[in-house]
Amino acid sequence: MSTSFADQSTLSHDEIEEGATLAPKFDAHGLVTAIAIEAGSKDVLMLAHMNAEALRLTLDTGEVHYFSRSRQKIWKKGETSGEVQKVREVRVDCDQDAVLLVVEQTGRGAACHTGRKSCFYRRVQDGSLVDTGEPKLFDPKVVYKAQ
Amino acid sequence: MSTSFADQSTLSHDEIEEGATLAPKFDAHGLVTAIAIEAGSKDVLMLAHMNAEALRLTLDTGEVHYFSRSRQKIWKKGETSGEVQKVREVRVDCDQDAVLLVVEQTGRGAACHTGRKSCFYRRVQDGSLVDTGEPKLFDPKVVYKAQ
Repeated sequence: MSTSFADQSTLSHDEIEEGATLAPKFDAHGLVTAIAIEAGSKDVLMLAHMNAEALRLTLDTGEVHYFSRSRQKIWKKGETSGEVQKVREVRVDCDQDAVLLVVEQTGRGAACHTGRKSCFYRRVQDGSLVDTGEPKLFDPKVVYKAQ
Repeated sequence: MSTSFADQSTLSHDEIEEGATLAPKFDAHGLVTAIAIEAGSKDVLMLAHMNAEALRLTLDTGEVHYFSRSRQKIWKKGETSGEVQKVREVRVDCDQDAVLLVVEQTGRGAACHTGRKSCFYRRVQDGSLVDTGEPKLFDPKVVYKAQ
């Protein structure tokens, strides 16, 4: 089954925010924002974007697909690194312009292209960034060498 | 002390992704994406946007400020509802175009304008949305009646 999306312009404000109709609010570039968290730990792994096709592929295949704004194309998470994200649950927010992906992070458990589990490995302290000490689970120079 | 931000164009790729310099990557509209999670539970509360001034106010005051894209102005979270978000920690992601806010959600504990704790109160199931049953902690008709 291929998931289809309703057009927000055909729905009332109440239907969009309280209803059962999946009607993602894609922006001027055709994108929604996606947050991926790890099932269980609830650690925030990464933030990326999806166009309609990436969201549809994610829902239909159970593996997360994003849309790369820099490369202007869909990428299946892990297609190069092996760090596939398996979907446990997908949620939408009130106005349906953001999705929350609850995933099982496969491979070495590294969502970030730097080799770390999470992209959020630095915290702000007194105007500077402090490394939180997340280990690098893979060497990006090796994993992405063909690119 | 007022927090200042470096310009990414003056930094190397490695300095941006691995360094200690806070250099947010604001998009063409001058915004970064912000995810707010609740300290302790790690529940994802909401997703919104910040311009430089909103991020600076958040870091300097310890209370979360966002930038409303629809109203084109900064708003302090909770200024109308009372649901102020107190900052416990701010993180940035690898390319510094997203921030993760770890917050204490004050007031009635409702980050969402619908009165719920989280904006992500519906999950996708078989192409439709299913309410996860989050209670409404306030009545938006009462809270926002003056608007």
